[in-house]
Amino acid sequence: MERPLVSVIMGSKSDEHVAKKVVEVLEEHCVPYEVKVISAHRQPEELERYLKESKEYVKVYIAIAGLSAALPGVIASRVEQPVIGVPVEVKLMGLDALFSIVQMPPGVPVAAVGIDNGRNAAHLAIRILKLAGFKPCR
Amino acid sequence: MERPLVSVIMGSKSDEHVAKKVVEVLEEHCVPYEVKVISAHRQPEELERYLKESKEYVKVYIAIAGLSAALPGVIASRVEQPVIGVPVEVKLMGLDALFSIVQMPPGVPVAAVGIDNGRNAAHLAIRILKLAGFKPCR
Amino acid sequence: MERPLVSVIMGSKSDEHVAKKVVEVLEEHCVPYEVKVISAHRQPEELERYLKESKEYVKVYIAIAGLSAALPGVIASRVEQPVIGVPVEVKLMGLDALFSIVQMPPGVPVAAVGIDNGRNAAHLAIRILKLAGFKPCR
Amino acid sequence: MERPLVSVIMGSKSDEHVAKKVVEVLEEHCVPYEVKVISAHRQPEELERYLKESKEYVKVYIAIAGLSAALPGVIASRVEQPVIGVPVEVKLMGLDALFSIVQMPPGVPVAAVGIDNGRNAAHLAIRILKLAGFKPCR
Amino acid sequence: MERPLVSVIMGSKSDEHVAKKVVEVLEEHCVPYEVKVISAHRQPEELERYLKESKEYVKVYIAIAGLSAALPGVIASRVEQPVIGVPVEVKLMGLDALFSIVQMPPGVPVAAVGIDNGRNAAHLAIRILKLAGFKPCR
Amino acid sequence: MERPLVSVIMGSKSDEHVAKKVVEVLEEHCVPYEVKVISAHRQPEELERYLKESKEYVKVYIAIAGLSAALPGVIASRVEQPVIGVPVEVKLMGLDALFSIVQMPPGVPVAAVGIDNGRNAAHLAIRILKLAGFKPCR
Amino acid sequence: MERPLVSVIMGSKSDEHVAKKVVEVLEEHCVPYEVKVISAHRQPEELERYLKESKEYVKVYIAIAGLSAALPGVIASRVEQPVIGVPVEVKLMGLDALFSIVQMPPGVPVAAVGIDNGRNAAHLAIRILKLAGFKPCR
Amino acid sequence: MERPLVSVIMGSKSDEHVAKKVVEVLEEHCVPYEVKVISAHRQPEELERYLKESKEYVKVYIAIAGLSAALPGVIASRVEQPVIGVPVEVKLMGLDALFSIVQMPPGVPVAAVGIDNGRNAAHLAIRILKLAGFKPCR
Repeated sequence: MERPLVSVIMGSKSDEHVAKKVVEVLEEHCVPYEVKVISAHRQPEELERYLKESKEYVKVYIAIAGLSAALPGVIASRVEQPVIGVPVEVKLMGLDALFSIVQMPPGVPVAAVGIDNGRNAAHLAIRILKLAGFKPCR
Repeated sequence: MERPLVSVIMGSKSDEHVAKKVVEVLEEHCVPYEVKVISAHRQPEELERYLKESKEYVKVYIAIAGLSAALPGVIASRVEQPVIGVPVEVKLMGLDALFSIVQMPPGVPVAAVGIDNGRNAAHLAIRILKLAGFKPCR
Repeated sequence: MERPLVSVIMGSKSDEHVAKKVVEVLEEHCVPYEVKVISAHRQPEELERYLKESKEYVKVYIAIAGLSAALPGVIASRVEQPVIGVPVEVKLMGLDALFSIVQMPPGVPVAAVGIDNGRNAAHLAIRILKLAGFKPCR
Repeated sequence: MERPLVSVIMGSKSDEHVAKKVVEVLEEHCVPYEVKVISAHRQPEELERYLKESKEYVKVYIAIAGLSAALPGVIASRVEQPVIGVPVEVKLMGLDALFSIVQMPPGVPVAAVGIDNGRNAAHLAIRILKLAGFKPCR
Repeated sequence: MERPLVSVIMGSKSDEHVAKKVVEVLEEHCVPYEVKVISAHRQPEELERYLKESKEYVKVYIAIAGLSAALPGVIASRVEQPVIGVPVEVKLMGLDALFSIVQMPPGVPVAAVGIDNGRNAAHLAIRILKLAGFKPCR
Repeated sequence: MERPLVSVIMGSKSDEHVAKKVVEVLEEHCVPYEVKVISAHRQPEELERYLKESKEYVKVYIAIAGLSAALPGVIASRVEQPVIGVPVEVKLMGLDALFSIVQMPPGVPVAAVGIDNGRNAAHLAIRILKLAGFKPCR
Repeated sequence: MERPLVSVIMGSKSDEHVAKKVVEVLEEHCVPYEVKVISAHRQPEELERYLKESKEYVKVYIAIAGLSAALPGVIASRVEQPVIGVPVEVKLMGLDALFSIVQMPPGVPVAAVGIDNGRNAAHLAIRILKLAGFKPCR
Repeated sequence: MERPLVSVIMGSKSDEHVAKKVVEVLEEHCVPYEVKVISAHRQPEELERYLKESKEYVKVYIAIAGLSAALPGVIASRVEQPVIGVPVEVKLMGLDALFSIVQMPPGVPVAAVGIDNGRNAAHLAIRILKLAGFKPCR
């Protein structure tokens, strides 16, 4: 089995409908990936452990989170890979998640895509992977 | 010298004008405190270390942050004490910081006060400390 | 029967779905509490009376309100205990309640938690009670 | 000296620039008035006392407040006269004050005018007073 | 039959659910009223005619409108009576209607009540009518 | 002297900085125009008179207004020509004016351009005039 | 068969419910039109081709788009005819589409109408066409 | 001289203060880059030409734009490289630009960073380049 190039992390099981859209696009393009559900706020140590391990093989992280969506920022502060954040609409039309993800302080970049727009997170990951030599199957 | 009861943490040196208001009220009421500048996003390990140490003596944390204000939430996920978050207006009138601080997921509470309202963070901390037996000097 | 440590006040019967979440968490942790429905705007005198009486035994107030959510602020102006405010989404995605609760003037602090996030109000109350020596059953 | 028909109450000394606009229009139309600075949150008892007394002679209340602007609503819950609320821009472009003033629960009406628009509060008061037989001097 | 004291005008037939709440409260208090559906934008001349006629007997106008809610402002610019505006939620959570109603230019006051809050429009009208000597039946 | 093809109407003298930008572009393209300051809310009859007269020769109306910007809508409800509305930032970053202008009810169209964007109002007018056979000088 | 005077372009098949309202009004007034589904972002070349061809006979473009609604602006930058943009509510209550459409840079005007308000786009087009000599059947 | 790996494109000369921050970070890390000022709306053909040429050597595009910020999306629809969008605050606190950039339709991804946050655009570009084998000098 291939090593996953993309790590898809949800902050909560309830973000699954968005993760599904990410995965669909990754599979359409034959990108090896793995999916995790780890909350930055509720499982900080588990997240730490997973990042330490996965950063050895993952090329791009896709972090999906709603409300005060700290997950993408926390990942970006722990790894050197590009981190893509997908804000999920739970309350406030997703504005809370969007602002939490996109308004990162200088030095810790997160690449935000649209609210609930899992497909674009995957498409962006594929553009990045292609730069790094990955050949998608379409 | 007394052990600090309140830890005042800024996410960035530029939040100092708000921290000053916190400190003024704490001093007016003779609350022993300490002030730190540690970014949740840029110095995650230093924050980790400080929290591990300080949670042995600190009773209440006051976290001050702008933009994607992850600091209060990160603290709340590491310690068991009450954490008060002060959103700072940097962009978007402070709405980004307010939403990042107040919209925490269930299980990891942060007590948000008003935008740039350092004074209320201190007043709230004092109310909490009084419950725990602290006698302010006024 | 134990004296209630937490007072849970709704501004309106229609906020009950949020109060329920508060109560669930309080019960899970064996925190003695009492629940009231009193509108700051429609029953100011009843509120006054209840606060005068309850402030003798209550340690933390949790006030739940929607729209122009004056309840938490009114309580905070009458008692010296910590007051936690839970904004309820009725109109404007709950932004009206959030702003009314969090943007308190300096000197009268309210601890705001997320929109409809009754669970975090309870969790925050428990953190505060633990500081004051309370031992939750879990 | 004439009994004041209009009571102009500011929540804070810092709302004076708006109160001034109210007073200008009242004077242009020879409406007898009085001006008070009383915070709903910081001086609840003083407010109570003043309302009990003034409601014997005041015909219309104009309440000016920023941030979590509880003042107009508190007045409306204590007196039977029409209460006009003027939201003041302090933070969030005045949206916090506007929402706090206008989104009152059913049964306790406040008449909101525009942000910082003291002149319209006075003009509205005059329209109401004219219905009640008052003859403005122009 | 009594002369109507309150004129309730909807901008559109689709605002009827809000007008109904106004009427309920007026009837509970035995206030004589009449109800019209006239669009400020689509029937300007009809509105003009109705206002010219009704201003001879109406004491308070209640104007209900959604979207770009010009109706209350147009009425306020034609009559000298107090005009109460009720913003209706059609799009944008009713913010468009709220802003259109409340942000009137100095000199042409409209008394805004909460979004869809027909009941408060009626309660406010009754407070005004009582000043003018009207005795509600409760 | 040529008959004006474009009528530029400001709701208030204070909108002049935006009207200036309209006029600059019109002059650059040699479009005959006239400029008026008439408030929809404060001078409804004067507006009525002017529209009755001007609609005989004007091809396009450009209405500039801030706050509750009723002017463009009122014009659109009186004339059959295209009406362009320019929202002016006075309060709320111009959102109040934008919503008042753009959210017109079906049947009474206004063409909204960007906040304070007088230049685009003129450019849009020129595109429309060219359709009608007008030849700008550049 | 008549040459279409109005081109109605949707950015996506899912905007059809809005296009339908445009078409209804155009048909009521006997305006010859054609309807296209072309995404500015996903089919830039197809759009380019269509515009090059259609600008020879089309008088007014109506572009319907949601989210980051680039379509109206792209058309306005390629043709000299008036372009009307209709923002569609997909996320964020349509504010994203409204802002994308209305906040065009100086020099490239788009005429925005209300969110999902296809009827007004058609009515505006008809006003423009009448200036150019078109006689609607009603 | 080295081939530029990053293309920094501003939509307008007035976005230069943000472009400067991008360039500072790129230079600190010795990333070869080129800077262009091309408006998506006003110079569509020039943009087309530049993209056709530059996509042969550029690895990452950074597009900086305010208002209706179509630039990043247009680039993303023409090239296969990752495109980073930086919203610039011109009006509406930059919300218009943020929404235009981040709310792209599925299939055409743009990586949004924070408002005016040129530094993070550069940091994100560097993370991506490192994946592709680039060695920054620090």
